[in-house]
Amino acid sequence: MPEPSFVAVDWGTSSFRLWLMGRNGDVLATSRGADGMLSAQQTGFPDVLSRHLAAVSAPDHLPVIICGMAGARGGWIETGYVDTPARLDGIASGAKRVPGQARDIRILPGLAQRDRAEPDVMRGEETQLLGALSTMQSHAALVCMPGTHSKWVTLQGGIVSGFATYMTGELFDVISHHSILSAAVKDANALDAGNPVFADAIRAVALHPASVTSQLFRARSGQILNGLSATDAVAHLSGTLIGAEIAGATRSLETGGTVCLVATGRLAALYEQAFQTLGIPSQTVDADDAVRQGLTLAAETLWPDLATSSE
Amino acid sequence: MPEPSFVAVDWGTSSFRLWLMGRNGDVLATSRGADGMLSAQQTGFPDVLSRHLAAVSAPDHLPVIICGMAGARGGWIETGYVDTPARLDGIASGAKRVPGQARDIRILPGLAQRDRAEPDVMRGEETQLLGALSTMQSHAALVCMPGTHSKWVTLQGGIVSGFATYMTGELFDVISHHSILSAAVKDANALDAGNPVFADAIRAVALHPASVTSQLFRARSGQILNGLSATDAVAHLSGTLIGAEIAGATRSLETGGTVCLVATGRLAALYEQAFQTLGIPSQTVDADDAVRQGLTLAAETLWPDLATSSE
Repeated sequence: MPEPSFVAVDWGTSSFRLWLMGRNGDVLATSRGADGMLSAQQTGFPDVLSRHLAAVSAPDHLPVIICGMAGARGGWIETGYVDTPARLDGIASGAKRVPGQARDIRILPGLAQRDRAEPDVMRGEETQLLGALSTMQSHAALVCMPGTHSKWVTLQGGIVSGFATYMTGELFDVISHHSILSAAVKDANALDAGNPVFADAIRAVALHPASVTSQLFRARSGQILNGLSATDAVAHLSGTLIGAEIAGATRSLETGGTVCLVATGRLAALYEQAFQTLGIPSQTVDADDAVRQGLTLAAETLWPDLATSSE
Repeated sequence: MPEPSFVAVDWGTSSFRLWLMGRNGDVLATSRGADGMLSAQQTGFPDVLSRHLAAVSAPDHLPVIICGMAGARGGWIETGYVDTPARLDGIASGAKRVPGQARDIRILPGLAQRDRAEPDVMRGEETQLLGALSTMQSHAALVCMPGTHSKWVTLQGGIVSGFATYMTGELFDVISHHSILSAAVKDANALDAGNPVFADAIRAVALHPASVTSQLFRARSGQILNGLSATDAVAHLSGTLIGAEIAGATRSLETGGTVCLVATGRLAALYEQAFQTLGIPSQTVDADDAVRQGLTLAAETLWPDLATSSE
């Protein structure tokens, strides 16, 4: 195995991903688990990290760079936020070293929009964004990072001028599990971006976004009156929430303006389909690559001697 | 006690209300319980009704008129729907008698909007609406019946031309109990219509209704960055959802047009405050009175000999 250079970790609320990185930016080994912040609060952050480091046989001296909820209040150590307007290359200098550990472990800060009327926070996505920007073909002004809490970032000359969180993924989850629509939706995994009901829901909510909480109910009334299938009900629910998010987030996007989509797998397919349905140009950057690349850029800033970049 | 004339029942999904009605429209006795449809599906509809009839000592010969989920699929007997455009005085003729019962028990149908794109259903609110229209001072064209599933009805010359359901109450419930906002919201009962945060949220979402799923998240980011209290977070969540509903439902209301609000208690106070905040004239009809009055009108149609009306 080539010599490892550092360890990169994306520590989310409910997931953990670790990469053993080589000198030239290669991934030498990976370890993933469901032991995100919520789980680590019970079992202890040092133990969770140690177990994953052992899984990839990481040498004792190897430094670790971490982004995400490990730096939140209630995380391992609180790393605070870099305030908007924010230069993304400034997040590395906001990293804090975890005290009392022989190994050099740094946790990156989040981003905060300290606005009375429109306060917002992110933690983890700023690192993904740093990586995405470095691989983006053109200079996008609007970046979409979909997920449990989708983040939409507005950039001006490479500086984050503002951002907004849309609770799309979590609303999809709580509505399909805990509301009256759960009976209509049944299996959320049946969601297919190619279902025309998904595109119909996108178009309908984009036309009248104020009716979003009414359009949701049509998953049920459509089932009662029109025999809407469970598969179509899932597509309707997802299309309504994703369509409302895009309608809200692209309000000030100029016509023909491109959205940079940072996503992977099914989420990428759904949002690509949604953008296409609404005639909004988009380019996709792989979300997994982006966060690893962002962690690598931060590591290079923190530890210049690593010289990870391919030569 | 004056002689009872008939029994009126509003049988919801999770609640049951029964009134023993006198000859002149007076309420002689009341029985309420949490044994709505979901509970009655387990214990049996006849048993639930018998228990409440016994609680008010209803004579054996007294007829019973029922609206609500008892007539749904999965209810006591399925009573179907009256289709829009619908005359409300037609719902009585759509009532079905429960077979195999010595007592004359009738269950009213719901209303259905059989539209491919905008299907919708109601069950119980049509009876409330019938009662509300009979007591309304002026001839309103738009009626708001807030609740778990708020119903907004458009009327043309006393005929229901269309309606829409907004999942406001249920979304408030699932978001405040099952989402990340539950930590910020804590006690949903702390909701106060007079809280300025409620009015602020109403105004903000009315300005940009497409951002509703983003504005919701500010209950959390406001707590993290601005020290938003749990009481204010509840007001923010409620104002956002009610504001989005009103923005969506009053889209085609002409300026100065009045909304008839059929509500009671805290819900009436919240919606009155919301309408006032947005400068929309409204008149309130008590929801409990309305459903009882609607059941009475239906009873008079079904059993003309009852002569319940005051002379």
